[in-house]
Amino acid sequence: MSLDLISSTCCFDGTQRIYSHWSETLQCNMRFGVFLPPAAEGRPVPAMFWLSGLTCTEQNFITKAGAQRAASALGIALVVPDTSPRGPGVPDDEAYDFGVGAGFYVDAIREPWSKHFRMYSYIVDELRSVVANQFPVDIERFGISGHSMGGHGALIIALRNPSLFRTVSAFSPISAPMQCPWGQKALAGYLGGDVDEWRKYDAAQLMLEHGWAGPEILVDQGEADEFLHSQLKPELLADAAAHLNVPLRLRRQLGYDHSYFFVSTFIGSHLEHHARYLGA
Amino acid sequence: MSLDLISSTCCFDGTQRIYSHWSETLQCNMRFGVFLPPAAEGRPVPAMFWLSGLTCTEQNFITKAGAQRAASALGIALVVPDTSPRGPGVPDDEAYDFGVGAGFYVDAIREPWSKHFRMYSYIVDELRSVVANQFPVDIERFGISGHSMGGHGALIIALRNPSLFRTVSAFSPISAPMQCPWGQKALAGYLGGDVDEWRKYDAAQLMLEHGWAGPEILVDQGEADEFLHSQLKPELLADAAAHLNVPLRLRRQLGYDHSYFFVSTFIGSHLEHHARYLGA
Repeated sequence: MSLDLISSTCCFDGTQRIYSHWSETLQCNMRFGVFLPPAAEGRPVPAMFWLSGLTCTEQNFITKAGAQRAASALGIALVVPDTSPRGPGVPDDEAYDFGVGAGFYVDAIREPWSKHFRMYSYIVDELRSVVANQFPVDIERFGISGHSMGGHGALIIALRNPSLFRTVSAFSPISAPMQCPWGQKALAGYLGGDVDEWRKYDAAQLMLEHGWAGPEILVDQGEADEFLHSQLKPELLADAAAHLNVPLRLRRQLGYDHSYFFVSTFIGSHLEHHARYLGA
Repeated sequence: MSLDLISSTCCFDGTQRIYSHWSETLQCNMRFGVFLPPAAEGRPVPAMFWLSGLTCTEQNFITKAGAQRAASALGIALVVPDTSPRGPGVPDDEAYDFGVGAGFYVDAIREPWSKHFRMYSYIVDELRSVVANQFPVDIERFGISGHSMGGHGALIIALRNPSLFRTVSAFSPISAPMQCPWGQKALAGYLGGDVDEWRKYDAAQLMLEHGWAGPEILVDQGEADEFLHSQLKPELLADAAAHLNVPLRLRRQLGYDHSYFFVSTFIGSHLEHHARYLGA
């Protein structure tokens, strides 16, 4: 497998790179970002995967979150994929919350989406393998986080693959997509009407079914987030965690909204959380 | 004078706001950003003005530099204007380095630019006054910084107004615009052919003419900056400073380019510099 280096930029004494590669899973070229801290020059480092929200590419987190500062200091790599397949031949929808920019981290089974929209397998299998093979990172010490749709993605991927992603955190995640409009639209559109398929991609449901034996799950949620009550519903995740005694730390942050100003404020704390349990 | 609040967002326990106002100086509506640290709730705080580079609006620094983190911790406000007049009736040029997005922090005297393109007076007089009157900041403790064209703007404004802006720093400034293509184009276009007019806006020249009795001037310059030798020429500023024993600390940063990844890496250090001398 070959990677094309798009750019490489010094940042906080480490290197922020953007790559493009042919994804067999998604049947299109995909971009992703990798930040390597200075510690990676001497030894394999742990890595935190970051999944972004609706409408984003790999650029939003890389340019707006300021995460490289803490990642450099803690000695943890950042892996930042795009949010959907895109490019020639990839079907789209005019809505912002379906199609390109809105892959929802599922493997679509409905036409015309099933050929390309397989972001779940792309992250869990293909990108994880690419990163482990191509960079000085320790595949035994991968964690995952994300924002909004990407917070949903991080939670479902970790809950289903606790041996592959050992730590998980989220910002303003879509906590129970089966119970909110964004989730219902995406799950019906990509998966069809069989609710058993939907359950595979609902964090609150997966927690009830699988539990979580890993370290504490950290979730930050802004109390001034315009999507809090209609779409995000972190209380449903908290209820599931409480039911199974899963250690979920849900921090409700007074005054904060859904933006990257919120993410930038608390990303250092999340990276410290991952680094602590991944042994950075 | 009235300000329209466009947005207000929690960030690092402070508030990032965007305002719009009618500028008498520029004869158009202008946006600017203000970040108020939590310390501003109790007492007037010092403020650092930030001037951005070519093609930028007030958004680039606000969303990409991550400056709010250090500003919050140090108790210093950030004031971030746009880089030129813009909007209905404002003349433009199709080039990226002249006209809208490229005000160069001069007061134009040539037609058709002289009615609107008066960014020097806008920053020094109008915006400074607006900010002092409308926010809990201490007008006796204003500093100024900027990047590229904005680094040029910060240097010339401080060198000409040391009692109004008591501290100055810059990232990759256009250090001697009379001696580089960007500067020669802008100065000729806005001011015409009289070189005596140009001297008012050339940092290296102004330092030779006026010196600087204030605290150390901090300049960071990436050694991998593609514009270093053709446009920026910090050695000309360093020569002028050495000639007059002005305390200029020019840090040449190995491997860093001209991007906001460079700015984000060192902005905390610049804010500490301003805070130290402004007594934050």
